[in-house]
Amino acid sequence: MPYVNIKITREGATAEQKAQLISGVTQLLVDVLNKNPNTTVVVIDEVETDNWGIGGESITVRRQAGK
Amino acid sequence: MPYVNIKITREGATAEQKAQLISGVTQLLVDVLNKNPNTTVVVIDEVETDNWGIGGESITVRRQAGK
Amino acid sequence: MPYVNIKITREGATAEQKAQLISGVTQLLVDVLNKNPNTTVVVIDEVETDNWGIGGESITVRRQAGK
Amino acid sequence: MPYVNIKITREGATAEQKAQLISGVTQLLVDVLNKNPNTTVVVIDEVETDNWGIGGESITVRRQAGK
Amino acid sequence: MPYVNIKITREGATAEQKAQLISGVTQLLVDVLNKNPNTTVVVIDEVETDNWGIGGESITVRRQAGK
Amino acid sequence: MPYVNIKITREGATAEQKAQLISGVTQLLVDVLNKNPNTTVVVIDEVETDNWGIGGESITVRRQAGK
Repeated sequence: MPYVNIKITREGATAEQKAQLISGVTQLLVDVLNKNPNTTVVVIDEVETDNWGIGGESITVRRQAGK
Repeated sequence: MPYVNIKITREGATAEQKAQLISGVTQLLVDVLNKNPNTTVVVIDEVETDNWGIGGESITVRRQAGK
Repeated sequence: MPYVNIKITREGATAEQKAQLISGVTQLLVDVLNKNPNTTVVVIDEVETDNWGIGGESITVRRQAGK
Repeated sequence: MPYVNIKITREGATAEQKAQLISGVTQLLVDVLNKNPNTTVVVIDEVETDNWGIGGESITVRRQAGK
Repeated sequence: MPYVNIKITREGATAEQKAQLISGVTQLLVDVLNKNPNTTVVVIDEVETDNWGIGGESITVRRQAGK
Repeated sequence: MPYVNIKITREGATAEQKAQLISGVTQLLVDVLNKNPNTTVVVIDEVETDNWGIGGESITVRRQAGK
């Protein structure tokens, strides 16, 4: 019955890619900890690049600076 | 001073329904733990069905399959 | 398939009280949004009073000041 | 390598204000705990006022009531 | 620069198993979305079985009932 | 009424340092967005180094490797 939350920047991940994240992390929990996939919940949050910071700067600013 | 986060799929919950969740869970914390409602915070996240998985599949796919 | 996270300060909530929170919020989601209780997940976090702040002060300090 | 999540109501915070939150909280973690800013992650969530409750009411309702 | 939070019940996961979760989900984000592993953060929360509910019951109660 | 969650590794932060994080981030939200400090909630999570990963490795392993 694990719960997984994946946060990524909103930069065009497709429904198929998000489905791969859901199936992949669910399988990982089966393989490593023998968790029941039927009650494993995965939630993906896509976050605007203005709203995500690393190194004290937003991703928007870092992208503009070529980082 | 509890903090409650409720995550549901984005499928048309109305403002009135969300208000019922807010008042209901706040009252529950008063009833069970005598918490002060004035500092009880509730945040509701509505998540796209492509971004929510259970059983290794997205809710979008499960809805299409009639699950 | 909702997911609910309830954060409270660690101040002696009993297993029975936590069970009441779990059953109460699960029922609330049935009543308000007709959600399936079998896939509704609730996680309760109990947080040390040194690690919870409101009004710019920790709960530990507020308790000592009689707030 | 801290991770900080800031949740605010969606009421017009500008990109510049969000950049100030990102740089400010990153610097705070440097100053207080000597954390490495290069691996400090900050995520800001902006939440609709219908989806945020305090005192058992949504912010939308509280704003209308002049609270 | 993704952030992943994995919540499981506290039931004896070893450091090695947790390392496998960290490396596995980091690699998944490389494979599916070409994310930079060096800034991918993973946090695992282990939750007491009294504090985790599904189907309106705590895991402690479900384990006792043989569910 | 913001809510802030700060996650750090559990490596001996003192009550005083945590109080500085609480007061500092509360003041930051006053300064940048004119938020009411009386309803600003801050929760600090301290996470075991086995349970925190970056670059695909746990912090425990990285510390041992001198990273």
